[in-house]
Amino acid sequence: MSKALSIFDTTLRDGTQGEGISLSADDKLKIAKKLDQLGVHYIEGGIPGSNSKDIEFFKRVQDFGLSAKITAFGSTRRKDSIAEHDANLKRVIESGVQVATLVGKSWDFHVYTALQTTLDENLAMIYDSIAYLKRQGLEVIFDAEHFFDGYKNNPEYALAVMHKAEEAGADVLTMCDTNGGTMPHEVHDIVSVLAGRVTTSRLGIHTHNDCELAVANSLSAVRAGAEQIQGTMNGYGERCGNANLCSIIPNLQLKLGYEVLEPERLMQLTNTARYVSEIANVYMPINQPYVGTSAFAHKGGIHVSAILRDSRTYEHITPETVGNRQRVLVSELAGQSNILSKAQELGIPFDPENEDTREVISKIKDLEHQGYQFEGADASLELLLREANGDLKELFVFESFKMLVEKSAGKPVISEAFVKLNIDGTSIYTAAEGNGPVNALDNALRKALITYYPGLQEIHLSDYKVRVLDDKDATASKVRVLIESRNYENSWSTVGVSGNVIEASWEALVDSLRYALIGQTKREDYTEIPSAARGLVNH
Amino acid sequence: MSKALSIFDTTLRDGTQGEGISLSADDKLKIAKKLDQLGVHYIEGGIPGSNSKDIEFFKRVQDFGLSAKITAFGSTRRKDSIAEHDANLKRVIESGVQVATLVGKSWDFHVYTALQTTLDENLAMIYDSIAYLKRQGLEVIFDAEHFFDGYKNNPEYALAVMHKAEEAGADVLTMCDTNGGTMPHEVHDIVSVLAGRVTTSRLGIHTHNDCELAVANSLSAVRAGAEQIQGTMNGYGERCGNANLCSIIPNLQLKLGYEVLEPERLMQLTNTARYVSEIANVYMPINQPYVGTSAFAHKGGIHVSAILRDSRTYEHITPETVGNRQRVLVSELAGQSNILSKAQELGIPFDPENEDTREVISKIKDLEHQGYQFEGADASLELLLREANGDLKELFVFESFKMLVEKSAGKPVISEAFVKLNIDGTSIYTAAEGNGPVNALDNALRKALITYYPGLQEIHLSDYKVRVLDDKDATASKVRVLIESRNYENSWSTVGVSGNVIEASWEALVDSLRYALIGQTKREDYTEIPSAARGLVNH
Repeated sequence: MSKALSIFDTTLRDGTQGEGISLSADDKLKIAKKLDQLGVHYIEGGIPGSNSKDIEFFKRVQDFGLSAKITAFGSTRRKDSIAEHDANLKRVIESGVQVATLVGKSWDFHVYTALQTTLDENLAMIYDSIAYLKRQGLEVIFDAEHFFDGYKNNPEYALAVMHKAEEAGADVLTMCDTNGGTMPHEVHDIVSVLAGRVTTSRLGIHTHNDCELAVANSLSAVRAGAEQIQGTMNGYGERCGNANLCSIIPNLQLKLGYEVLEPERLMQLTNTARYVSEIANVYMPINQPYVGTSAFAHKGGIHVSAILRDSRTYEHITPETVGNRQRVLVSELAGQSNILSKAQELGIPFDPENEDTREVISKIKDLEHQGYQFEGADASLELLLREANGDLKELFVFESFKMLVEKSAGKPVISEAFVKLNIDGTSIYTAAEGNGPVNALDNALRKALITYYPGLQEIHLSDYKVRVLDDKDATASKVRVLIESRNYENSWSTVGVSGNVIEASWEALVDSLRYALIGQTKREDYTEIPSAARGLVNH
Repeated sequence: MSKALSIFDTTLRDGTQGEGISLSADDKLKIAKKLDQLGVHYIEGGIPGSNSKDIEFFKRVQDFGLSAKITAFGSTRRKDSIAEHDANLKRVIESGVQVATLVGKSWDFHVYTALQTTLDENLAMIYDSIAYLKRQGLEVIFDAEHFFDGYKNNPEYALAVMHKAEEAGADVLTMCDTNGGTMPHEVHDIVSVLAGRVTTSRLGIHTHNDCELAVANSLSAVRAGAEQIQGTMNGYGERCGNANLCSIIPNLQLKLGYEVLEPERLMQLTNTARYVSEIANVYMPINQPYVGTSAFAHKGGIHVSAILRDSRTYEHITPETVGNRQRVLVSELAGQSNILSKAQELGIPFDPENEDTREVISKIKDLEHQGYQFEGADASLELLLREANGDLKELFVFESFKMLVEKSAGKPVISEAFVKLNIDGTSIYTAAEGNGPVNALDNALRKALITYYPGLQEIHLSDYKVRVLDDKDATASKVRVLIESRNYENSWSTVGVSGNVIEASWEALVDSLRYALIGQTKREDYTEIPSAARGLVNH
């Protein structure tokens, strides 16, 4: 198919309407840069008329030299007034963008209820505002809010709105399913009608996910003639979110045959999705299509054996096309064959017929039964496998730890930890303060180990998660702690489980450091200056 | 539309293939009971041939007297063997179900690669297995694995498979998009072809969400003639999950006009979805369509004012139809109007022109800036609003707390907390142990308060979440703790933020108890026996 499609990303505007999503101007600039590298064609940065953060974004983004077109969002002029005097339109122009995205009403019910004006005045508001921005030399995208609901209620009026916008010179007429309630076949029918009527403007689509159909509705619209697709990274947005570009882009490109992005850029999709989720500080569902960590994860024993024979048996695309990867999960459902293929992946030789092998498998199953979860803690699993294989030595013999948190009215809280270990017959007792109990424990533990293992200096903990396993009685039940650690090149995850969050954290901390030190030998000569070039082996 | 559709729930079988999902026989029985109350027509309980847990489920579920039909999953007989001697088919029969769901191959590539047999032998495997189960008096649903991929690769063979299954007496021929890679228009075309060929069997659809199209594909299939829809609660399942029944059911019923469930049962949808998510111990995305906590949450200031005028302006259905509810979020994006409408919802009188009102709004914004999030902690927000309004008295004056965790090799970990408070001039110093540090703090705090407020006995903490706010350096950065508490009738959530997880937990704990005691007066007479009938006021 030769028709060119353009991707319009509104993560920074409509995406921030999602519950729990809040982006600073800095966050927005970082995301814009990343989206530009991915190759989206339009980036909607915000509403310059609404707050100073967005004004700052539009000012600073000009120095970035992005390839994507930056667009600012505004509304049609106020009723019974003049576009040239409209403060909101003025701020769109002052933002310095080349493209304005202007929202207007196309549902008669909303004209009466929300705007509280006449149908004719709404048409005039649309015409005047677009024509004014066009006279200022801007490219104008007209967002027809509630277009599908409007069409279903009063088709003549919804079409009249689009004709008016086209007449005023709008470059793109975007049909918005604002409430997310339209079905894909309705989208197809309605877009087809409009596609048969417009002559100069192109058509755009903007959908919401309230029926879990935003992606399908976007594809429906493209098949009926829409050429510009609005959406957000990871589907962020109000209520159930906007259309998820992370699914729409590969569907258009890998399934419907459009070249939306250059193939090398498509390989940045997973990475971009995860980056945006980190900046937005929003949990990414593991089962998110295409880019989630489970998207190509196989658990069923039969599936796993077929996958190892030919990945097309249970994968609809090659994960690398979108920058993701295949994973084989270790779990009770999968059993021995998955654990063995994990060992194989790690290059640990395991004989399935061996007694030791059966022992480690039964140990892993037993730990899972206690609440450990190795699907999200690859490093702890690797330690268990290496331990069973005998190629892992203990770093130290644990003697005790104590952890104290103290808070008095009007004074800052204090956290202290005391750790007692024995390394090769030498008893080591350290004490450290920290910003919190886990940090204090981490500090005391490192203090004990770092003279022997200077490589630990390069490591820091990058994420810390606590999950209550049985929420019948939350503060008296088991918790699972997952810790993610990083050095300059890699990250790894470890797990700890206990009725006590501090003990569970300790377990995961110890595993993290043990993993970091795989393949490293203890430094015996304390007088030697640690070499900065000394890397960590194996990860 | 008069055609009867049936809902086939496979949460307990295919749903458990999802990463991180593991259900005990007890869990499965609880979920089956709940699904039956919702009114699904078929419940697939598991694979009796695979493990003892599933065998236990099928045995125990017979005593429940459920209205839904229980079905067991199995595969067609092994190649080059006899159905009557097949161990897997035997276990399906022995499980005692009235309905068998049998999976077979319909993609020639899989016959060669995975089964490693001939196309003819595969047809024989299908025919023999179905015919055998039919002779045993079972209703048989035939799951044609990879039917759409098979049809695209070799349409004659895929159709031959279905004809063979129909000839053998299958009651339902289910077309599976096993890899989840098929587009909705393809589903429509292919289902239409098959619908034109079958005469006695009904058609079923089973889709996966790898392209974020499982719901759309299910609807497409229904529009083309499918009458039975397979899916899972919350879309649990391997990789990106199965088709989400929580979206499909309301789409069929509220959008496409089928009566799938009785309307009163549809109102149990949200509750059922959340219950299953709790039992499965899997995080439910807040923006999940129809049943998520954000599904009808409004954040944008303009949207909120329109919603308050007429909810149809930004809601595609009435939330109560599916048992959900509208929420107005308090956030920086929304500002004053949302906070005021929240206060209105709570019946707290606030004058927007008043200086005190502006002060509380600026305090809330400041706390949000520090990392507090009131979108998920309604109770803490209510406390702030009531405090500002002057109708909240302090329970105690805080003096200090200490928290100690101690672990020695080979001994159990010990947690102790010491709390010093002043209530009306009386200094109270309590000490308590606990199953973990937060539990110890909770115990010590209650010990100090319970003689004054016996109502606290009825309250327990039901969930505890920790979120690292800045993951640059996880154990030395701010954390947000959310605590959910319950009494017999209600639940409420509170928040605490600190660099120290213990301090943050303390804050959230104190808020939880303060909220529980709104409207309660202090018990002055210690000799009185607390009345069991004494309820908690206001929640």
